[in-house]
Amino acid sequence: MGNNEFVKEITNIEEDFAKWYTDIVLKADLADYTDTKGFVTIKPYGYAIWENIQKYADEEFKKVGVKNAYFPCLIPESLLNKEKEHVEGFAPEVAWVTHGGSEKLEERLVLRPTSETIIATMYAKWIHSWRDLPLIINQWCNVVRWEKETRPFLRTREFLWQEGHTVHETFEEAEEFSRKMIVVYKKIIEDLLAIPVLEGKKTEKEKFAGAVNTYAVEAMMHDGRALQAGTSHNTGDNFTKAFHVAFQNREGKEQFGYHTSWGVSTRLIGAIIMAHGDNRGLKLPPKVAPIQAIIVPIAAHKEQVVVESKKLLNQLNQKYRVEIDLRDNYSTGYKFNDWEMRGGPVRIELGPKDIENGHCIIVRRDTAEKITVKLNEVENKLKEILDQIQSNMFHSCMERMKQKTTIAHTLEELEGIFETNQGFVKAMWCGDVACEDKIKESTGAHARCIPFEQENLGNTCVCCGKEANTMVVFGRQY
Amino acid sequence: MGNNEFVKEITNIEEDFAKWYTDIVLKADLADYTDTKGFVTIKPYGYAIWENIQKYADEEFKKVGVKNAYFPCLIPESLLNKEKEHVEGFAPEVAWVTHGGSEKLEERLVLRPTSETIIATMYAKWIHSWRDLPLIINQWCNVVRWEKETRPFLRTREFLWQEGHTVHETFEEAEEFSRKMIVVYKKIIEDLLAIPVLEGKKTEKEKFAGAVNTYAVEAMMHDGRALQAGTSHNTGDNFTKAFHVAFQNREGKEQFGYHTSWGVSTRLIGAIIMAHGDNRGLKLPPKVAPIQAIIVPIAAHKEQVVVESKKLLNQLNQKYRVEIDLRDNYSTGYKFNDWEMRGGPVRIELGPKDIENGHCIIVRRDTAEKITVKLNEVENKLKEILDQIQSNMFHSCMERMKQKTTIAHTLEELEGIFETNQGFVKAMWCGDVACEDKIKESTGAHARCIPFEQENLGNTCVCCGKEANTMVVFGRQY
Repeated sequence: MGNNEFVKEITNIEEDFAKWYTDIVLKADLADYTDTKGFVTIKPYGYAIWENIQKYADEEFKKVGVKNAYFPCLIPESLLNKEKEHVEGFAPEVAWVTHGGSEKLEERLVLRPTSETIIATMYAKWIHSWRDLPLIINQWCNVVRWEKETRPFLRTREFLWQEGHTVHETFEEAEEFSRKMIVVYKKIIEDLLAIPVLEGKKTEKEKFAGAVNTYAVEAMMHDGRALQAGTSHNTGDNFTKAFHVAFQNREGKEQFGYHTSWGVSTRLIGAIIMAHGDNRGLKLPPKVAPIQAIIVPIAAHKEQVVVESKKLLNQLNQKYRVEIDLRDNYSTGYKFNDWEMRGGPVRIELGPKDIENGHCIIVRRDTAEKITVKLNEVENKLKEILDQIQSNMFHSCMERMKQKTTIAHTLEELEGIFETNQGFVKAMWCGDVACEDKIKESTGAHARCIPFEQENLGNTCVCCGKEANTMVVFGRQY
Repeated sequence: MGNNEFVKEITNIEEDFAKWYTDIVLKADLADYTDTKGFVTIKPYGYAIWENIQKYADEEFKKVGVKNAYFPCLIPESLLNKEKEHVEGFAPEVAWVTHGGSEKLEERLVLRPTSETIIATMYAKWIHSWRDLPLIINQWCNVVRWEKETRPFLRTREFLWQEGHTVHETFEEAEEFSRKMIVVYKKIIEDLLAIPVLEGKKTEKEKFAGAVNTYAVEAMMHDGRALQAGTSHNTGDNFTKAFHVAFQNREGKEQFGYHTSWGVSTRLIGAIIMAHGDNRGLKLPPKVAPIQAIIVPIAAHKEQVVVESKKLLNQLNQKYRVEIDLRDNYSTGYKFNDWEMRGGPVRIELGPKDIENGHCIIVRRDTAEKITVKLNEVENKLKEILDQIQSNMFHSCMERMKQKTTIAHTLEELEGIFETNQGFVKAMWCGDVACEDKIKESTGAHARCIPFEQENLGNTCVCCGKEANTMVVFGRQY
């Protein structure tokens, strides 16, 4: 089988990005469709990516004082109804449990779409004094939202995520914490996933149902579209009032706490696919790759090759996530393509001549570069190469984000950009939701965020021409 | 507040074990009741125990080739109905989702009580050839069973668990793997949780709905009752036939695979509480304790004490899970009791005189022994002490299990034992379910298992007096 034969099965990324995406999800063994409509299975290779994200994120969370817990997956309807904006935002898209065993339930239960309501009822029991604050708890769990159109990892009726929920003494402290989590998310996505993000505040129109302020990290995909990669909400006392989460403050008076919530989900796997992938398939950043290096023995029918390859495996797998491909029913060429498609950061080729010469060949997935490395140096050299790949992948994305970020001063300019090009467009905005609506209607782009790093691009609104002091980044979204 | 005042709040363990249990769950901050009837919240301290179990178990699983994945939490009713025994076993106790958003679903969905059915449909898609086998996948997830009576950790409408599902080429291989997982579970429970277990095969009456053979590890609690701590099922080709999980075998013919499934759950936290706890509260084995050592500064109003205590913390928390109790609104006596109640394996006292003498006092939770340790030796000495505690706790449980394991030759003897005493009772059994039923009716005891290590206690059935070749262990259960 020729080297290119296998790759042809993947749709060209420039021709049909959506179909390319689905091809990668299925052919790289990340996920699969199921008999439950709108639900996918995350396969072991995809799940291992999620495990690496969890591990990294969980360590970062613990550094800022987060403890994990677990709350019920079913929430009584009456609880969901307690916070007005929240129920309006979520009620249309939840799954309802109406029967337990053969009996009809007295009150319907909702399968959590998010857990603010049930967690707030617990916090009301647990919090009594300012000494109990801040309370900083996270849960790793599944959530269900009855989406109409679904795509693996990006929008499915069930997904896995973490949701952190904190309570603080003051609004300012909640505000500070919700912004701190954006810094944490930025680190996870940039350092681990090698995807640069834009961080900022959501507009009133785009914020979370029940939040005072929503902050987000926004990433740019291969086609220039935006993907909301993580959000952090300061819900002020909206939930704490509705659920009576009150405490005795330092002055001995009863007051309501201030709540934040923040989450990232298995959507991040979609972000990895769409930010890094190419026509050869998935491309995984070494730090998050389940298999960082795959050893492919050349002429594997020769016993010595297998012996030396296994020796190399044992030498490397103390420090790295390494596997060996000993499948005897596939050609070497097929294996090369297969591992490129699965996004393995490097493959290590070892054949009879290499062994003779005391070296191996390390092939980079990102640049296709072949590097000859002495066998007694491979342990250290591999680290160097993986670090370079991680850094190179980040900078490639950063370069794209810079290239595809433009400025618009008028609605015509904005429309023109989105007709020919996707990307982030910076523009001044008056703050009126009517302008936001109009821009969405004529360009299909949403306000991604009001970036923390503001620039002065003039003082008139890109849409209505009235006075404007706020720079917004617009983009079409996933 | 005197040293005993605090402890008085816990029900005496010998007077009302059930109430003692609930006291510990709530007062040691392990779990709490919620507004969703029959559902509990696992609080951070309880969840941290689960995280330690997960981490240990996951590493053991990976050693036998297990990979993790994630399958949908909702299963179409038609799938549940495909395996006859399975649906009969589970249908009466499941939660039904009937509506998504505002629309009634065409087909009801069941919130997974276990995932054999949905996983088998995926395996049918994934498995084609003997080369795809064995397939060894596990998922960590929540499951829901509509229990009528609930108790935190032991029996709740939702619990967390892992469920492994494998497919093999032959029945023998499936049999071998299902028994291998019992060895893994035994290690987890004995080595990590310091609870000795009895391992064996379930009787036909007690086996899993859909299994050919069910194996279990059974633990004995403080009151002598049994707790099923983990199960492993060889379901043969029951599910693979029902879901057409077929493959081309080495002879090129199509055949059905052989399936196993196995699980442990947050029930193990209940086992820890009930196997080790005493009248001072929870008692956690060091290996699974979220906080292995708690530093309690004596005369903490003195600056030097706090400085030296923090120094000790920093010295120890690289190697151990250590925290410091600097709460200024509680007395030292209260703190001592509080940490004993929370089951911390040791507390480390450090006061002005100790600092002067260059030592600290380590107090063991299991024996109340006070050990004076030089500050420059504490790092190594702590390991020694924690190891001793772990070992001592295991042997205490083992001693109890030995003492409370008796032999019965007749139904009268069996009845007599269960009237005066709980525990494991060994007896010969003819294999007839009628005898099992009769024993259950007259003693309240179930056949726990047919132990792998059989003994010959005679050759007549304890119940009917007919010929018997099988030794069964009976016990009342949680």
